[in-house]
Amino acid sequence: MSEHTYYNQALHGPFETHDIGDLALEEGGTLRACTLAYSTHGTLNAARDNAILVPTWYSGTTKIMEQVYIGEGHALDPGKYFIIVVSQIGSGTSSSPHNTAAPFNASRFPKVRIGDDVRAQHRLLTEKFGITQLALVFGGSMGAQQTYEWAVRFPAMVKRAAPLAGTAKNKPNVFMMGEVIRNILTSDPAFDGGFYGDSARMHNALRQHAHFFTVIGWCHEFLHAEMWRALGFSSLEDFTTGFMEGYFLPMDPNDLLAMVWKWQRGDVSRHTGGDLAAALARITAKVTVMPIETDLIFPPEVCAVEAALVPGANLQVIKSRCGHLGLFAIEPDYMEQIDRHLRELLGTVV
Amino acid sequence: MSEHTYYNQALHGPFETHDIGDLALEEGGTLRACTLAYSTHGTLNAARDNAILVPTWYSGTTKIMEQVYIGEGHALDPGKYFIIVVSQIGSGTSSSPHNTAAPFNASRFPKVRIGDDVRAQHRLLTEKFGITQLALVFGGSMGAQQTYEWAVRFPAMVKRAAPLAGTAKNKPNVFMMGEVIRNILTSDPAFDGGFYGDSARMHNALRQHAHFFTVIGWCHEFLHAEMWRALGFSSLEDFTTGFMEGYFLPMDPNDLLAMVWKWQRGDVSRHTGGDLAAALARITAKVTVMPIETDLIFPPEVCAVEAALVPGANLQVIKSRCGHLGLFAIEPDYMEQIDRHLRELLGTVV
Repeated sequence: MSEHTYYNQALHGPFETHDIGDLALEEGGTLRACTLAYSTHGTLNAARDNAILVPTWYSGTTKIMEQVYIGEGHALDPGKYFIIVVSQIGSGTSSSPHNTAAPFNASRFPKVRIGDDVRAQHRLLTEKFGITQLALVFGGSMGAQQTYEWAVRFPAMVKRAAPLAGTAKNKPNVFMMGEVIRNILTSDPAFDGGFYGDSARMHNALRQHAHFFTVIGWCHEFLHAEMWRALGFSSLEDFTTGFMEGYFLPMDPNDLLAMVWKWQRGDVSRHTGGDLAAALARITAKVTVMPIETDLIFPPEVCAVEAALVPGANLQVIKSRCGHLGLFAIEPDYMEQIDRHLRELLGTVV
Repeated sequence: MSEHTYYNQALHGPFETHDIGDLALEEGGTLRACTLAYSTHGTLNAARDNAILVPTWYSGTTKIMEQVYIGEGHALDPGKYFIIVVSQIGSGTSSSPHNTAAPFNASRFPKVRIGDDVRAQHRLLTEKFGITQLALVFGGSMGAQQTYEWAVRFPAMVKRAAPLAGTAKNKPNVFMMGEVIRNILTSDPAFDGGFYGDSARMHNALRQHAHFFTVIGWCHEFLHAEMWRALGFSSLEDFTTGFMEGYFLPMDPNDLLAMVWKWQRGDVSRHTGGDLAAALARITAKVTVMPIETDLIFPPEVCAVEAALVPGANLQVIKSRCGHLGLFAIEPDYMEQIDRHLRELLGTVV
């Protein structure tokens, strides 16, 4: 395929890709030649026990996780750990609607679940790297959904897990947020059942998507205090256009829709017939649950209910006035908190 | 004009209408033959000091306020007070885009502000009823915006004020919620610049509007606990279709847009050059501020900041697990709280 104007090495790399083969999907159907985009940082030690897996969030790829969370001075230190960041299916760099050949392209891309991502990542880790244990799985938002799924599905492999700003079982209000996104993206006259061709034709819907994310992604504290001024914006409209529209405009709507569908249905209790307590009780990893204080999508009190169902889990609410998108670490004291909690978790003998 | 299928006496009456004449608007332009729909309950006493004004919220008319808040046994007791409920401009029963004759119909309806509503209501009260003092102004949501505007604009006339689940100055996150609504309603291909004709053609946008309101109007507690079961619905989809879509589908999109525009710009500090503290300091009414505990649109902490700027204000957070739409009083202990706080306020000698 030709190089995409956004999902490319220049903007999201360097990343590697690995074809794990055909992936039989939980919803039925097959994702053929399932390809994961990933990046690694540091070196796998001889004992193969210093591996950390970092899955990605909605609209993100390996790049944002590297830029924000990984590096010397951070808990995720490539000098100590072998860190593998894997872009989720649908992210635009791994197998996604926009980069899949017809006839399974665009809106014919099969329905993928969080569990499919985790099984695909498991194949990558075991077959490509020979990794059979993970010192830590750490992810934010949809990355937290994958983190919980890892800890429930492969308890023997996951020593520690740190879900940040996300849940083990998606909640109905968050499902409805996904419905709003789906409405916005699919009702644009340019959508044409998903066969819009050039995603630039979908700019109106992508701009509206950005406005909706301004409402749910940030929080009243952030917007009321005009914290966007610190990012170089001069008015609310300047911010929503320059930052929010600018962020989402280059993305592919079908890729976003594939992720939204998955996000809406993340649920570890699928392993236990709908019994969330039973699913979370399967976790043997040492877990630190980190909700963000002002998060409107995954409020701390919701995350706390799940944390209480995880044996021995440590609940640490991240102080922030940015809501869910505190994840971008624009506050000076944000990463210090994340690093402190991750270091404590990594220092725990399991 | 012909009887509307929704904004009519059968569904929203009985109500009276009164033409207050031409209303010069704050944004410029004129609302000609400005007509207010209102209903009265009880009798104005000889001293003319038992009048209570109740303005309406977004998408509501006099009817919902009567059904929920007014009656024997409630603080708003027609046996003691002369209660005047006035539908806001744009509500569908008062002057609104859908019931205004061309060329000022539909999207050519002039821009109306909260201050225009309050001046129109002032004219109705003084000219039609000879009322020069109000024992209480009480309103929820956009009704709270009007309540604050009354207390700031006509301090000598307003003895008591009780803004419920609303703010004196609209906040940027709430402005963005309005932008999402505007996006949804105006981007439907059927919208045609506002000249869609039969609003049934706009059903897709109205359904999407209902989904967005499911997200912001309720809260995670309500949806997670499936409190809609008590309303007779059997699944989340059954509820969002049966209740939320059913509620918004018969409405007129231009009417909603007129109210949204007004809602987004409600701001008593327009009287004081943008100084909210100075505006609220003008209030001489005895004020009880009632945010709803789980409100995502007007959270208690936001309302509390404003309450602290109102001389002698009493802040009473309403316990609720319904979010903003707790306003519909579907919880058994909701009205008891409202009535208790209003009775205490009405019992205060001013």
